[in-house]
Amino acid sequence: MALADTRFSNRRRKLAAQLAGQRIDAMLVTHLTHVRYLSGFSGSNGGLLLRKDLTATMATDGRYTTQIAEEVPDLKAILGRAVGEELLKTLTGPMRVGYEADYVSVSQLEKLTAAAPSDITLVPVTGVIEDIRLVKDQHELRRLTEIAELANTALTQLIDAGELAAGRTERQVAADLEYRMRTLGSERVSFDTIVASGPNSAKPHHGADDRVIENGDLVTIDFGAHLRGFNSDCTRTFVVGEANDFAKEIYNVVLESQLAGVRAAVPGAKLVDVDAASRTVIEDAGYGEYFVHSTGHGVGLDVHEGPYAAKTGTGELAEGMTLTIEPGIYVPGKGGVRIEDTLIITSGAPQIITQYPKDMREI
Amino acid sequence: MALADTRFSNRRRKLAAQLAGQRIDAMLVTHLTHVRYLSGFSGSNGGLLLRKDLTATMATDGRYTTQIAEEVPDLKAILGRAVGEELLKTLTGPMRVGYEADYVSVSQLEKLTAAAPSDITLVPVTGVIEDIRLVKDQHELRRLTEIAELANTALTQLIDAGELAAGRTERQVAADLEYRMRTLGSERVSFDTIVASGPNSAKPHHGADDRVIENGDLVTIDFGAHLRGFNSDCTRTFVVGEANDFAKEIYNVVLESQLAGVRAAVPGAKLVDVDAASRTVIEDAGYGEYFVHSTGHGVGLDVHEGPYAAKTGTGELAEGMTLTIEPGIYVPGKGGVRIEDTLIITSGAPQIITQYPKDMREI
Repeated sequence: MALADTRFSNRRRKLAAQLAGQRIDAMLVTHLTHVRYLSGFSGSNGGLLLRKDLTATMATDGRYTTQIAEEVPDLKAILGRAVGEELLKTLTGPMRVGYEADYVSVSQLEKLTAAAPSDITLVPVTGVIEDIRLVKDQHELRRLTEIAELANTALTQLIDAGELAAGRTERQVAADLEYRMRTLGSERVSFDTIVASGPNSAKPHHGADDRVIENGDLVTIDFGAHLRGFNSDCTRTFVVGEANDFAKEIYNVVLESQLAGVRAAVPGAKLVDVDAASRTVIEDAGYGEYFVHSTGHGVGLDVHEGPYAAKTGTGELAEGMTLTIEPGIYVPGKGGVRIEDTLIITSGAPQIITQYPKDMREI
Repeated sequence: MALADTRFSNRRRKLAAQLAGQRIDAMLVTHLTHVRYLSGFSGSNGGLLLRKDLTATMATDGRYTTQIAEEVPDLKAILGRAVGEELLKTLTGPMRVGYEADYVSVSQLEKLTAAAPSDITLVPVTGVIEDIRLVKDQHELRRLTEIAELANTALTQLIDAGELAAGRTERQVAADLEYRMRTLGSERVSFDTIVASGPNSAKPHHGADDRVIENGDLVTIDFGAHLRGFNSDCTRTFVVGEANDFAKEIYNVVLESQLAGVRAAVPGAKLVDVDAASRTVIEDAGYGEYFVHSTGHGVGLDVHEGPYAAKTGTGELAEGMTLTIEPGIYVPGKGGVRIEDTLIITSGAPQIITQYPKDMREI
C-alpha cells in the first residue's frame, strides 16, 4: 500500500509542477482515465481536485463509498453525484482553477461555473496530464507487459488449437480469441477484435463478420485485452493453407518495414523518423500508396495514446514510452498484411512485449 | 433501401421541426450515436449538418469513403478529419447553427468557432435528439427485440449446458455467456457482464471476478449484447443448489415488485409512479432501505437512455418507448436479488422482450 501511495502521489507531484508554470492554484480532474491515473480510483463516477500545495480531495457518489476507501486510502473523499460541482464548492478563493477542456462538455462547464464560488476563475487546461502519461513508470510497464503476455498466450492457444482454419467464419475466430483472453483474466477487449480474411484483409478497419475463411487466404488478426485499466495491442497476419507469390511478397515487405521501425525506435529518435523508417521500406518496394495509415501510437490506459509515429508526428521518443510499430500493405481486391508489435522504449534496443513470432506462418 | 431512406429522413424531419421552434437554421450533429440515428452511418468519425429546409450534408474522413456511400446513399458526404469544422465551412450566413452542447467539449467548441464563417452564430442545443429518440420506430423495435432474443438464447444455452455451477468462478461463467452471445452474432457486450455470487450478489455494481461459486449461493447475472448499434439489457438471479429461507423470501419480494412495475408500465403512466409501483412492494415487505437504485431506464442505441423510472423521474410513458423494470434487494453480507426485464410500451400491457423465465430456479 505504501508503494501504491508513492506511485500516485508521484504522478500528482508532476501535475502540480506543471500547473505552477501556468499560474494555476488547483486542478479539477474529471476525465475518468485521469482520475484513475492520479489516484487509483476505478469507479465509473469520480473526480479529483489537486491543489498546488499537493493536497488533494476525491469525490464520488454513494455507490462507491467502500470502493474509494479501499482504492484511495490516502485521500479524503466527498460524496455527491455531480463530482466536479461538489469539489469546486469546497474551495475558497480567490483562485485560478484548471479544468480539462478536452473532456469537459460545454454544458458541463456551464454547471461547473454555476457551482464555483464567485472568486474562483476556471481556466481551460489541455494536454498536461497526457504529457505526463507519455513516460510510463515501472508499475505501468509491468502491467502493460502482463496484459500483452496474456493476449499473446491467447493467440498461441488459438493457433495451436487449430481454431484459425478454412471453413470457419471470421466471427467464430474472433469469438474464440476473445474467449481465451477472457478466461485468462482479461476484463474485456481493448477494442473490437479484427479478423480480416481474404479480400477483407485489404480493409485496414474491417471488423470480423460472417465471411467463411478459405484456403489461401491472408488473415489479419488485430486484437487487445484489458486488465486493471491497461490495454494490449498486437496484430499478426497468417496464411491459411499455402501462400501465393503475392502474399509472400507483401508479407516480406511488411515484415522488413516492421523490423526497420522497431530498429528506429530508440530514445531521441524523432517520431517522424520512426514513421519514415517503416514507410520507406514499403515505398521502396513500390507499395507506398497501399500503406494508408500511420506507423504507430502509444499504448497505456488508452489503447491509442501518445506518442504518435506518423508523417505529421511531433516530438521524439524517450525511455519509458510505449509505441506500436504496425505498418501494413492493403491492395484492394487482392489482400493485405499488417504486422504490429507494442514496444517499450529502453536505453538500448526496444523491448517487444508482444512476443508472438513474426515469420510468415502457413497454417 | 427506399425503406431505410424514409426511416432516417423521418427522424431528420422531426429534428428540423424542433429546431424551427428554437429559431435555429441548421444543426451540427457530431455525437456519433446521433449521427448514426439520423443517417445510418456507423463509422468512428462522422458528422451531419441538417438545415431547416431538410437538406443535409455528411462528413467523414478518407477511411470511410466507401462505407458512407453504402450506408448513406441519399446524402452527399464531404471528406476531412475534423468533420465539424469541415461542415461549418460549407455554410454561408447569416445563420444560427445549433451544436450538441452535452457532447461537444470546450476545446472542440473553440475549434468550431474558429472554423465557422464570421456571420455564423453557434447556439448550444441540448436534449432535442434524445427526446426524439424516446419513442422508437418499428425498425428500432425490431432490432431491439432481435438483440434481446439473441441474449436470451445465450442465457438459455448457458443454463442448459450446466455452465452456471458450484466450483466455477464468476469470471468463467461471464466468459461462457459472452462467448455464447458472440457466436450467436453479438458484436460486443453492451456493458461489462455482471456475475455476482454469494456475498457479491449484495453489491449492485459488482462485476465478475475470481470468486468460486458455492452451493447455496444467490447468483445475479446482468448482461447485454450489442448488434448493429442496438443493445439488450436483462438480469436474472439464480440459486445454485438449494435456496435458504432468506433467499426465497427476498426472491419472492423482488419478483412481486418486478411484476408490479411491469403492470404499471402503460402509456400515460408517470415515471415516478412506475418507480413507486415497484418500490412500494419492497418497502411494504420491510426491505426498502436495501433497494438502493432506481427502477428502470430506456434501452436503445445507448444501453442506458431515457425514459428514467426513478423517484426523481419526470414525464410519462408513451407507446413505443422502452423501459427496464429492475428492482433489487441487496443485504450486505447476506446476499441480493435483482430481476430485470426490458419492455416495449404498447397500447395495452407492455411487451416483454427479455423472455427468460422469472420463477426462482434452483440449479
